[in-house]
Amino acid sequence: MVKFDCDYMQGAVPEILTRIASINDEQIDGYGFDGYCDSAKSKIREACGLPDADVEFMIGGTQTNMVAITATLRSFEGVIAAETGHIYVHECGAIENMGHKVISLPSHNGKLDPAEVKEYMHKFYADETYPHMVMPKMVYISHPTELGSLYTLDELKALRSICDEYKMLLYVDGARLGYGLNASNTDVTLKNLAENVDMFYIGGTKVGALFGEALVIKDKNLIPNFFSIKKQSGAVLAKGWLLGLQFDTLFTDNLYNNISRHAIVMAEKLRQGFIDKGYRMYSDSYTNQQFFILKKDKIEELKKKVSFAAWEEFDSDHRIVRFATSWATGEEDVEELLKLI
Amino acid sequence: MVKFDCDYMQGAVPEILTRIASINDEQIDGYGFDGYCDSAKSKIREACGLPDADVEFMIGGTQTNMVAITATLRSFEGVIAAETGHIYVHECGAIENMGHKVISLPSHNGKLDPAEVKEYMHKFYADETYPHMVMPKMVYISHPTELGSLYTLDELKALRSICDEYKMLLYVDGARLGYGLNASNTDVTLKNLAENVDMFYIGGTKVGALFGEALVIKDKNLIPNFFSIKKQSGAVLAKGWLLGLQFDTLFTDNLYNNISRHAIVMAEKLRQGFIDKGYRMYSDSYTNQQFFILKKDKIEELKKKVSFAAWEEFDSDHRIVRFATSWATGEEDVEELLKLI
Amino acid sequence: MVKFDCDYMQGAVPEILTRIASINDEQIDGYGFDGYCDSAKSKIREACGLPDADVEFMIGGTQTNMVAITATLRSFEGVIAAETGHIYVHECGAIENMGHKVISLPSHNGKLDPAEVKEYMHKFYADETYPHMVMPKMVYISHPTELGSLYTLDELKALRSICDEYKMLLYVDGARLGYGLNASNTDVTLKNLAENVDMFYIGGTKVGALFGEALVIKDKNLIPNFFSIKKQSGAVLAKGWLLGLQFDTLFTDNLYNNISRHAIVMAEKLRQGFIDKGYRMYSDSYTNQQFFILKKDKIEELKKKVSFAAWEEFDSDHRIVRFATSWATGEEDVEELLKLI
Amino acid sequence: MVKFDCDYMQGAVPEILTRIASINDEQIDGYGFDGYCDSAKSKIREACGLPDADVEFMIGGTQTNMVAITATLRSFEGVIAAETGHIYVHECGAIENMGHKVISLPSHNGKLDPAEVKEYMHKFYADETYPHMVMPKMVYISHPTELGSLYTLDELKALRSICDEYKMLLYVDGARLGYGLNASNTDVTLKNLAENVDMFYIGGTKVGALFGEALVIKDKNLIPNFFSIKKQSGAVLAKGWLLGLQFDTLFTDNLYNNISRHAIVMAEKLRQGFIDKGYRMYSDSYTNQQFFILKKDKIEELKKKVSFAAWEEFDSDHRIVRFATSWATGEEDVEELLKLI
Repeated sequence: MVKFDCDYMQGAVPEILTRIASINDEQIDGYGFDGYCDSAKSKIREACGLPDADVEFMIGGTQTNMVAITATLRSFEGVIAAETGHIYVHECGAIENMGHKVISLPSHNGKLDPAEVKEYMHKFYADETYPHMVMPKMVYISHPTELGSLYTLDELKALRSICDEYKMLLYVDGARLGYGLNASNTDVTLKNLAENVDMFYIGGTKVGALFGEALVIKDKNLIPNFFSIKKQSGAVLAKGWLLGLQFDTLFTDNLYNNISRHAIVMAEKLRQGFIDKGYRMYSDSYTNQQFFILKKDKIEELKKKVSFAAWEEFDSDHRIVRFATSWATGEEDVEELLKLI
Repeated sequence: MVKFDCDYMQGAVPEILTRIASINDEQIDGYGFDGYCDSAKSKIREACGLPDADVEFMIGGTQTNMVAITATLRSFEGVIAAETGHIYVHECGAIENMGHKVISLPSHNGKLDPAEVKEYMHKFYADETYPHMVMPKMVYISHPTELGSLYTLDELKALRSICDEYKMLLYVDGARLGYGLNASNTDVTLKNLAENVDMFYIGGTKVGALFGEALVIKDKNLIPNFFSIKKQSGAVLAKGWLLGLQFDTLFTDNLYNNISRHAIVMAEKLRQGFIDKGYRMYSDSYTNQQFFILKKDKIEELKKKVSFAAWEEFDSDHRIVRFATSWATGEEDVEELLKLI
Repeated sequence: MVKFDCDYMQGAVPEILTRIASINDEQIDGYGFDGYCDSAKSKIREACGLPDADVEFMIGGTQTNMVAITATLRSFEGVIAAETGHIYVHECGAIENMGHKVISLPSHNGKLDPAEVKEYMHKFYADETYPHMVMPKMVYISHPTELGSLYTLDELKALRSICDEYKMLLYVDGARLGYGLNASNTDVTLKNLAENVDMFYIGGTKVGALFGEALVIKDKNLIPNFFSIKKQSGAVLAKGWLLGLQFDTLFTDNLYNNISRHAIVMAEKLRQGFIDKGYRMYSDSYTNQQFFILKKDKIEELKKKVSFAAWEEFDSDHRIVRFATSWATGEEDVEELLKLI
Repeated sequence: MVKFDCDYMQGAVPEILTRIASINDEQIDGYGFDGYCDSAKSKIREACGLPDADVEFMIGGTQTNMVAITATLRSFEGVIAAETGHIYVHECGAIENMGHKVISLPSHNGKLDPAEVKEYMHKFYADETYPHMVMPKMVYISHPTELGSLYTLDELKALRSICDEYKMLLYVDGARLGYGLNASNTDVTLKNLAENVDMFYIGGTKVGALFGEALVIKDKNLIPNFFSIKKQSGAVLAKGWLLGLQFDTLFTDNLYNNISRHAIVMAEKLRQGFIDKGYRMYSDSYTNQQFFILKKDKIEELKKKVSFAAWEEFDSDHRIVRFATSWATGEEDVEELLKLI
């Protein structure tokens, strides 16, 4: 069975397994206070062009969002997200469980429209009852979004400007960041992303690591006592070097970008194959997630030989489906899929 | 200055002040364990036709919503509300602060559309990723709504049926319940409201009391240890008899309905006056809140002599305004207002 | 039946009821934004010698503690209290429910020993695992304590100094503050209390008001957006003037002190009466709560004619009992009690 | 440098690394819904003698405690722990951050005394103010404790009986469970532990795994929707098979016990060596953590060649120190340490 269900179905790039094995007998200090973490942090800081940033290794995406977002909000403050945003829909209310409202705005192909954010903020403070309302203190975006789309540099700058105007933080969920940075038509680089936002995380779980995300906090004083907050959230890994070692590997010899680019090449091939056969795209994605509108009977037939995610109904005859490539996708699998459709 | 800003601008019906004064020297047990509370509870149970219900006296509306809603939800469960619902907009995230998502659905003149709730629930469980999502466990409505509108008995029954189908609780915010039950064209009585919902509160703060709300919990075993939850929330009044005495007074000799009816008569007079002069209504309200669309310059002129709430812009020339009557509204004030418009 | 159960068994000083009645028909702005609140705040600021302090009116003691304490702590920070402290024992975990640990230290007649607080803090930071532990950020004391005892000015200053050394806030629960300030042998005045602490509340519920506490925050910028936090906690009273008016009354013509002093005089008479008859005191209290050690059969006999609080067992034959006087205690009641013992 | 700082300083038993590498290219379903997890659960259920138990794989110990404990408590309920308990001291208030009080009782060599728990519960319900207090709903113990001590089977049964009497749950933190079960003088087996408690976790992080704990919930209906709670807590691992595979390996061919036994043999050798040289033990531990009282200058000298944990001062000349062995401890390292002392 060929599988395109998601981008976290396989282990890790071989380099990571090799390195873990190679230091398995070393006695290493716990909780992330070790040389592998230090080295990885240095490489990430350099790649981001942020020599003074704090880099914190986390275990997974929901955990990273939960800790990073709620550590910076006061009790009556909330975070703006697209109504398709992961924190709004698919984290089982993790942000709310920690006490904060996620304020949803319309999704445009998975993205927030900066103009709508500006309008929301303008109206918010124009309403004299605003002290009775949750005060927006952060804008959350995902890049790529849950629909595979990407912000342009201009859009990022527009959001930055709105956040500055209204004293809000700009935070990027980069669970699939590698697949965004290595898309063919993006003008957003890691450095200019880093320049325009306050915090973001570089996804490892979906991009070559066994697990792990690297949270980059531009102003290292933004969240004092981060370790204690992480500990309190059950987010500290005793063998923290497992995270450092993986990111050190991914940020050596451009590995993170190289494996991401592979997923993009596979996605583009897949995308073109569907287009060539006349399938309709649901979202115009240039990253590793490709969405199409398929007839229900076609889906049933395909499911016998390929696994993939069938999303909601598009109309009574069609559903939206998603095919995800990853760093581990084999070209032969894409070719087999294209033969089947 | 004539004031129609809101319905909680004046003290209490004189009967309440008289009774408080009359027992001021009595030594009464604390925390609501007193005869006045017992008597009030009996009268409320009888008025609701719910001889076995639990009745809990609370201090204010946000507190009642916060305690009642969050005491019945598990950590990953949420509450559905209209996007205009008080808990969604104007309680500063009290529900989220206690850990729970408020799931918003479109507002239709302030109300939820039962068909849309049904559709939401159907789609929710049809989506195989639902364990990653906040599970709706309660439907919150306000009656009257924040826009003055009222559910019909058929709508209530439809919501009841959906809640039964999906094992959800139906909860009614009755901050202005008296003004709903005593509207001229409603078919919802206290008894049939009580029959169709799981919990609701009878508003006192806006309907004749100095402060206080009576939360009615149909199944008295729904929230075990309610007192401890109330205490923990800072919601226990040491001199609990102050609440019991007020509700005992309001539920004696039909006082609650009589004073509510007065507010309705005043609102109807006000409404007709505006209609007669050709003003456009913003929401078709038959309760104590009346919404109109006024020209901005007209608003400025009026504001010199009358105070009222100016809501958001309707268009570049107009704003939405609200005039609220209450149990304390003087007929001469309505007449003066009508002369001014 | 003579009642000495507690100090919140009767309504309010007559002056308060009179004033409420006198403005019952006035239309007053909501949420505490009114002239009565403003006037009360001014008087309290002056009485405290803190012209720049923020004064916030709250409804009850647990609510005040919960909001004031948790609004100033970050998620991993906690508050130190005596193991007999109200927040540690009798608020049903309100502080923990808001996410914060109450760190208990031994009680010495209801009080914290400043030397023990200092020792705790010294050891805390000397332990290199402290980032894994809840960081003490506040010291909570009650004055008078739950056992009726009082801090001396030297003790307050010692706590102040420790708090300064370890960057902690010093907070005083003044539910019975009037009874502390008006004890015969105290050297703590309202002004020097105010000078030495960061926040405290002046209890109204137990000292002449129907309900209400006045929270004084020395640095008015300590808790930005206090209103929103209060709203979110269900702690905003729609008719906020009810609180302002009561405190305005209590802080006019020295009423608060005068009525407090009455309770002290009654307590001293009661205390002397017990001593004269050879009863053993459980705690050496000079405030309105008097604790004695009574034989169990004596308690049963007394309970037929007097009500009071029977606390835990002292030994197999004796229990600890508490008699509370208040602003409303009648001298004839004290005399009757003394005849009965 | 020989290192005895803790028991999580090295990677994993080689069998685990080998298996991860062997399936690195397999496409495996996410979130723990895979065959490796299923297989591991079966083996654990069998080892525990609990064919119907729920087994949930978690990432770390604090996370497991936080999720398992708070998922079973209502908002006003708390958990009893020894004052040395990990949740009381070293999890940065994770339980409180989720809203619940940890109620501390005295530590006896790291353990709760069942008689004191019983006494506490008796007094709790005898105090008529108990609805104002946090209601104990769970007893937390660690086995081995933080001081290396072990409960006897009789003590476990006594706690079980108290929990039954007061309708409390009994939960065991088994971060080092293997080192407890394989101590030379214990009468507690995995099966009789499982029989006497409601929930416990089998530690992997400190016992041979890279990371991971297996939470065993005897009544599989105790925590409905466990997955959603886990997701909400940021505790779901996308590649859940990483946990299943590790526990499957540990529970094959008695590996978990074998590697644990090795740590015990090393600890016993270390212990005997210290005793032979006349050192005083701080706690009488038969598990992998050994505590001694050392002179401060001896500590400084030793620290040049060995790393270990220096705990608090014992007296002005001495400190308490801890040496931890693990599944990975080399016999030659123990021998070198013994030469140095």
